Amino acid sequence: MRNDEIPNPAVYRLSFYLRQLESFRRGDRHTISSKQLGEALGYSDAQVRKDLAYFGQFGHPGIGYRVDDLIQQLKKILGTDKIWNVLLVGAGNLGRALLAYKGFVRKGFRMVAIFDTDANKVGRKIGELQIRSDQDIATVVTELQIRVAMLAVPVEAAQSVADQLVGAGIKGILNFAPVALNVPADVVVQSVDLALQLEQLSFRMSLGETSQDGAPSL
Amino acid sequence: MRNDEIPNPAVYRLSFYLRQLESFRRGDRHTISSKQLGEALGYSDAQVRKDLAYFGQFGHPGIGYRVDDLIQQLKKILGTDKIWNVLLVGAGNLGRALLAYKGFVRKGFRMVAIFDTDANKVGRKIGELQIRSDQDIATVVTELQIRVAMLAVPVEAAQSVADQLVGAGIKGILNFAPVALNVPADVVVQSVDLALQLEQLSFRMSLGETSQDGAPSL
Repeated sequence: MRNDEIPNPAVYRLSFYLRQLESFRRGDRHTISSKQLGEALGYSDAQVRKDLAYFGQFGHPGIGYRVDDLIQQLKKILGTDKIWNVLLVGAGNLGRALLAYKGFVRKGFRMVAIFDTDANKVGRKIGELQIRSDQDIATVVTELQIRVAMLAVPVEAAQSVADQLVGAGIKGILNFAPVALNVPADVVVQSVDLALQLEQLSFRMSLGETSQDGAPSL
Repeated sequence: MRNDEIPNPAVYRLSFYLRQLESFRRGDRHTISSKQLGEALGYSDAQVRKDLAYFGQFGHPGIGYRVDDLIQQLKKILGTDKIWNVLLVGAGNLGRALLAYKGFVRKGFRMVAIFDTDANKVGRKIGELQIRSDQDIATVVTELQIRVAMLAVPVEAAQSVADQLVGAGIKGILNFAPVALNVPADVVVQSVDLALQLEQLSFRMSLGETSQDGAPSL
């Protein structure tokens, strides 16, 4: 099956499987069945097998999955078996929070540059990184071979900064501005809509749904 | 059909339909077909009809959907037809970014209180709100009838603050700490895992996927 025929929720579930497997590994589990993996996340074993089958044959008869192997395979599929250099545009509160977020580097995303359009901020340091002018984006992208950007600028600036990023050669944008971005077909945008998350929470509260945090809902 | 039998991706799509309908309304569209709504988001008309059919009969033969009506119905389903009072724990960079985020109030989520465990921060103001001690959580939750909390504290503090929130009567937590929370069955946790978003982005980049931002992927 070609990758572009894989349903998106299955790709989200890969992320959840990966997290759960890493948790098993921390607990010194070396092998795992699809039933055990599914149970830990609230999915059926058939669902687990079907999701993984999109990407290859990972199980071993009578053994199940080897935890270490499957972690490596899933990382490879998700593209996180390598280090990604990531730039950030927007040195406001959200940008600072993103810089401080420890989860990124653990997943192989390394923040290597930060930019702001505000001349008053340029030159200041946040942690190890000095804030640079957005005028330097193209130079830095080439120099550090960056393909991924996080966009944490106000709504009004988002499209024009996105245009700069695309012009500089960025191929993936994690967008925190609550606005739809127009980008060329070879650029991927993943939007983080925080209000949508609250909306989903309010829906689930109105159901009175049981939801331990260990059971992701996709 | 009972609400708890509705697939989660369908509920996410409701949020996307709602956003698209609001966009149509701003463009002075009064009626819309399932085909037009689907096309704007990259879904088939069959998908749109199936998703909406989980929740009721909204279309009118020969007319399609009335934009205003469907917006009201979707808000009611999602629980955002009313104002929710929301509290925030954690007055760090992320907390400040969340307070400044304009998307919440537009969706009916009103930040009414902010707490921090750091005595040095207590008493300071952020915008209109004064930071209060986490010791006051129970009192304020009762006083302001708050049921929803955002958790923007460090990983180490997340579970103990979650316990405080649950003890105070909070029924829904939007969790930004990259850690699984244990809560009772009647409390809903929605976790925002920012690294997972980057992971999905890197997967989609490896596909070279076409993705204008207007076409959500669930």
